[in-house]
Amino acid sequence: MSWKRWVLGSPLETARAHEQRLGVPLALAVFSSDALSSVAYATEEILLVLMTAGALALGYSVWISLVITLLLSLLVASYRQTVHAYPEGGGSYTVARENLGTLPGLVAAGALLIDYVLTVAVSAAAGVAAVTSAVPVLREHRVAMGLLFVGIIAFGNLRGLRESGRIFAVPTYAFIGSLALLLAAGTWRWFAGLPAVEPPVAGLPEVTHTLTLFLLMRAFSSGCAALTGIEAVSNGVKAFEPPETRHAAATLVLMGIILGTYFLGITWLAHTHGIVPGEGQTVISQLGRAVFGTGALYYILQAATAAILLVAANTAFAGFPRLTSILANDRFLPRQLATLGDRLVFSNGILILSAAAMLLIIRYDGDTHALIPLYAVGVFLAFTLSQSGMVMHHLRLREGRYRLHAALSAAGATATGVAVAIIAVTKFTNGAWIVVVLIPILVFAFLRTHRHYFYVRTQLSLVDVEPDRPIRHTAIVPVSAVNRATVYALRYAKSIAHEVEAVHIALDPRRTEQVQEQWKVWGGGVPLRILESPYRSLIRPLVDHVDDLMHGRRRNEMVTVVLPEFVTAHWWEGLFHNQSAFLIKGALLFRPGVVVTSIPFHFKR
Amino acid sequence: MSWKRWVLGSPLETARAHEQRLGVPLALAVFSSDALSSVAYATEEILLVLMTAGALALGYSVWISLVITLLLSLLVASYRQTVHAYPEGGGSYTVARENLGTLPGLVAAGALLIDYVLTVAVSAAAGVAAVTSAVPVLREHRVAMGLLFVGIIAFGNLRGLRESGRIFAVPTYAFIGSLALLLAAGTWRWFAGLPAVEPPVAGLPEVTHTLTLFLLMRAFSSGCAALTGIEAVSNGVKAFEPPETRHAAATLVLMGIILGTYFLGITWLAHTHGIVPGEGQTVISQLGRAVFGTGALYYILQAATAAILLVAANTAFAGFPRLTSILANDRFLPRQLATLGDRLVFSNGILILSAAAMLLIIRYDGDTHALIPLYAVGVFLAFTLSQSGMVMHHLRLREGRYRLHAALSAAGATATGVAVAIIAVTKFTNGAWIVVVLIPILVFAFLRTHRHYFYVRTQLSLVDVEPDRPIRHTAIVPVSAVNRATVYALRYAKSIAHEVEAVHIALDPRRTEQVQEQWKVWGGGVPLRILESPYRSLIRPLVDHVDDLMHGRRRNEMVTVVLPEFVTAHWWEGLFHNQSAFLIKGALLFRPGVVVTSIPFHFKR
Repeated sequence: MSWKRWVLGSPLETARAHEQRLGVPLALAVFSSDALSSVAYATEEILLVLMTAGALALGYSVWISLVITLLLSLLVASYRQTVHAYPEGGGSYTVARENLGTLPGLVAAGALLIDYVLTVAVSAAAGVAAVTSAVPVLREHRVAMGLLFVGIIAFGNLRGLRESGRIFAVPTYAFIGSLALLLAAGTWRWFAGLPAVEPPVAGLPEVTHTLTLFLLMRAFSSGCAALTGIEAVSNGVKAFEPPETRHAAATLVLMGIILGTYFLGITWLAHTHGIVPGEGQTVISQLGRAVFGTGALYYILQAATAAILLVAANTAFAGFPRLTSILANDRFLPRQLATLGDRLVFSNGILILSAAAMLLIIRYDGDTHALIPLYAVGVFLAFTLSQSGMVMHHLRLREGRYRLHAALSAAGATATGVAVAIIAVTKFTNGAWIVVVLIPILVFAFLRTHRHYFYVRTQLSLVDVEPDRPIRHTAIVPVSAVNRATVYALRYAKSIAHEVEAVHIALDPRRTEQVQEQWKVWGGGVPLRILESPYRSLIRPLVDHVDDLMHGRRRNEMVTVVLPEFVTAHWWEGLFHNQSAFLIKGALLFRPGVVVTSIPFHFKR
Repeated sequence: MSWKRWVLGSPLETARAHEQRLGVPLALAVFSSDALSSVAYATEEILLVLMTAGALALGYSVWISLVITLLLSLLVASYRQTVHAYPEGGGSYTVARENLGTLPGLVAAGALLIDYVLTVAVSAAAGVAAVTSAVPVLREHRVAMGLLFVGIIAFGNLRGLRESGRIFAVPTYAFIGSLALLLAAGTWRWFAGLPAVEPPVAGLPEVTHTLTLFLLMRAFSSGCAALTGIEAVSNGVKAFEPPETRHAAATLVLMGIILGTYFLGITWLAHTHGIVPGEGQTVISQLGRAVFGTGALYYILQAATAAILLVAANTAFAGFPRLTSILANDRFLPRQLATLGDRLVFSNGILILSAAAMLLIIRYDGDTHALIPLYAVGVFLAFTLSQSGMVMHHLRLREGRYRLHAALSAAGATATGVAVAIIAVTKFTNGAWIVVVLIPILVFAFLRTHRHYFYVRTQLSLVDVEPDRPIRHTAIVPVSAVNRATVYALRYAKSIAHEVEAVHIALDPRRTEQVQEQWKVWGGGVPLRILESPYRSLIRPLVDHVDDLMHGRRRNEMVTVVLPEFVTAHWWEGLFHNQSAFLIKGALLFRPGVVVTSIPFHFKR
């Protein structure tokens, strides 16, 4: 395994698993990259729907953004309560399961797992779009770049990104800073009445839709992508410097203000500049060229956008394995997902997440627009369940002004619930159906897994076990030829059992005679039984013989089949030997009371 | 394995492995199909070379055929001697190895194995060509048809074609009969001065070569494909009715006469009709249409040609596995190739042969002409080695008119040796180089395999073994949790060893405490040792502990690690459990004196 060590680094001690505590500035960088980065594509997605209904329809983009920003304030207010109620970390799964029951909890968990995968895929696709907007020749390689993007993050996470906070602060603040500059300069130019430095590249396409309420709702659904990731703070309260809840709440509000301002600002500026999404350039890129021109500032903006999207994808690489590990500990997923790998990371979860995201990127050709319809359903479903859980939480505990809190959470739950319905309906045929189908499948798998572990626990229970019941022991040594390996196996058999019997399966009369002859010298008093095999099978006569023995055995009798096994110095030398030990083991595996033991015989050089 | 039974049929008893003895007429069908079927393509291959030098060059085809027919008589005469000298069956490998030494024997064996694969590939390609000549629309499916052709034969052989002789007599005699009719009718029409019923389809292509000696030699090399398969009789002398050698010799001569006559006749008729190979129709097909017209007789001719080629391919399916089994018994190939499968056939050999032939068909696009250059090198190399072996044989035994016999074999060896050289040189760049490279590689592999088995035999030898040396026994039971499976494993450990120790690898302090608590109740007096694992590895601390134990052990002490192993009712349920038993086994496999035993714990439903 030395190549694994070389690539991933030496194992890390459990004792090093302490988390660093974060202050507000660092926490903002760590927890808000996912949410903030969505402004890189949310406006574009709204315009993409509206522009099919002509120039007039585009004006609605600002109004839709306003509605989404209102929803944002409601969610921020509501999640502030979650932060205070769950200082240990209140993920949607935990909150929903604790307050609503197992099934809603699992639905939230399924929705979140899908959400994490899509966060990675969408962020990778949007990050690549930011790069190819600036460097158009790379456009044809976008799928490969997206895969590379995911591969790099997965690799970093498998090695264990211990320094998370510090290195992630740079791209997040670079993005916050360069967008602030863009919005300020853009607003100033608008007041000064200056024209765009570079006019927008794309014109309006042909009008294919009329402006209906359905179309507006679809645009709203698309814009909801802006709100993905805002729950991150409430999951990670424990990571804050004390007083944890107050710092977390402050970070949440700060993030909400930045996100809302930027989202509204970008939508408004895009509208005033008459920018629409076009082939090869994102809205942010066009806006950057209109305000800055194609200079250093523009390239910094694009680089910062790509970088924050990378960091956003990385968030999912922390969240997904943490959630699968919680689910595995609750026995809703296989136990292998519960354990830390030797670099102190949940390696299996990381591998599953990156594989799933890569598949999506390949399937949807690395296209952000194609992935977005799958995205928001899961996120908003988790929001709804989490808020509903909080309503129950307040009503149950009845602490302080619980009616007000419950009402706020209920408002949040209702608003996000309506949003889920709108998104699921308006995006159903564009891909949302996949998520609608996938969530029940995941929930079913969780429940089946749970049931399996329940049966296992029941059958492993120690009720009625007599700890000290003695075992009577018979050992069988199959002998195909008398050689050193056989003699070693025989010696071992004699040391573990009182009754030992050697059996030879007669395939070749000359061979059988030879074995019988040699047995007189080397058999050491153990009887040799010859089993006929009219069909030349090694396995059948042996299995039948063992069955015969077991048939007549007493209740506490066990049969051990002792096999010589050749261990060759090189793996390919194994091809030169029959794998009969393996086949015998497989054939006897399902027989209670039978144990198959291989005695390794080691070949040198 | 019930699907395997359903497809391949029930196993057959060893007692049914008796061969039916063949009289001359049936033997001719069984042993000559390979040789006779080559007239279906040999003439065509000669013309294909000559026609590049223009119309005048085509006249040489008759002369080249005459030379090849002379070579044929020499070979028949020489192989008659082999039949008498090796009544047990004198394959080239046997004859060369016995008289010339191991290395020449292995070269012959390598050449023969390649020859068998090519027999299948070429016969399949030529058989498909016979069909597509008659039904041109099938031409584009020739690769698929070739694969199907091979697949059907492989399938038949895996089931065990017990009725070989009888069902193969039909296509062979149909071919012999319809070609006899073709030649007779063609000759009569020539004497009568009648024109062709249908003129040949293909005209001469542009002249691209001048008629050089090299070109003539290349045409000769191509025509040598006619002689492939004539050694079959000498391999199968044992299958004849007594007196075996006389019947075999008679069959050989009869086959030689038919083959020579047909080959010469076809070449001469093709020449008089001005037939050259063309797109989509074989020479035989054009000849058939010229003599019979496109009627019932023509279709019977094509069907019989395809059928005998199928039978010829089938010959290789008998020869290849028989040779690999002989080589495996001599320890030049893995032992798995030496044993009869449960349908009394050498299944592994059949699978390897068909896979190799299918690869060739795909690689060479199902084209006979492309495969032919690879074909004759191996065949003629085996001829040469076999004849040279016979020279040594006569000189060593000095029986009867041994000088005459030796001279005859020497003439055969020289002639075929010259042919090998001519073929290898003139066809080198067309593909013969592959065979020239492959034979040494095969011989190297044979020798490496042999060396491996030699080392194995040496290390398995019983020299210095004390049969009855007692073993001291320590058993270790790794305990991750105290449950029914653990208790069963502990019980087993106590029954096989005097010293038993339980070990727990501390990964989670709460778990460790719980195990220690429960051990007081269920441990049955066995000490529980806690092993620290700072890097959360299950394997490392266990392996280190075992190493410590082995370090201090006495010479006759063994350590058995007894592991509880979960056996689930469905294979996929295995995914819910750590495969740590498997990993522990792998980690301890290479430590002498350590045995790992799994005690299966069976889950219900």
